[in-house]
Amino acid sequence: MNHQAIKQEIRAADQAINNKDFDTVANFYTNEAALVVRPDLLAYGRTDIREAHKRISEYFNGSLEVSQGDMVVIEAGNTALVLAKTFVKSSEKLDSEYSTERDAIYVYVKDDSGKWLCAIDNSYGVELLKKQA
Amino acid sequence: MNHQAIKQEIRAADQAINNKDFDTVANFYTNEAALVVRPDLLAYGRTDIREAHKRISEYFNGSLEVSQGDMVVIEAGNTALVLAKTFVKSSEKLDSEYSTERDAIYVYVKDDSGKWLCAIDNSYGVELLKKQA
Repeated sequence: MNHQAIKQEIRAADQAINNKDFDTVANFYTNEAALVVRPDLLAYGRTDIREAHKRISEYFNGSLEVSQGDMVVIEAGNTALVLAKTFVKSSEKLDSEYSTERDAIYVYVKDDSGKWLCAIDNSYGVELLKKQA
Repeated sequence: MNHQAIKQEIRAADQAINNKDFDTVANFYTNEAALVVRPDLLAYGRTDIREAHKRISEYFNGSLEVSQGDMVVIEAGNTALVLAKTFVKSSEKLDSEYSTERDAIYVYVKDDSGKWLCAIDNSYGVELLKKQA
């Protein structure tokens, strides 16, 4: 499986983030999705996730650029795990801890129409285990 | 949320693995689940996952002991991402690359009866990104 359908959704979501089109960004998520904003802060649901993306963009003075490198996708029926080299760049805040390369973890679910939606967006990956310890 | 329901399922699955009760192990998975047996080998579905767990156990001469340390659970509706410090021990194969501590990634889904089942079991975590590169 080459998982093009899921990868296409992820690239389109990145494009919407980079374009600051937050209505479109929100529609890539399930209604009950969870976004890890920071290791200690989660946003739940499309409305709050839209707002969180807007605030993240403002934090970077609108100069945020996200993209994915290598991806590993494991599909199991209507559920998929995506591991991705994620690049977060900002020309305005190069010293920020949020400008970095990360091993991100996404969970996608297929809805009744066959479209893949993001249920869990954790760009911090397994780092969350360290923060908790 | 303390996510006790999911954590209890994971502990019970570990117990079944350690007891070599593979019929019980298989029932902790969805019908279409995926198990990362090795970075280059996946097993799909309860029948193949049962067989894979049996073979892993045989590889360790029946001395395999799995357990979880710290866990981070992110629930989003009927989908959950679990990050876990996983300990894989074997008194028979201490030199094996399979005897180790790992940052594991599991995806759980809630079925119609409200029971959490494992859809994706990836004890190698983001290591899969390195193997692919």
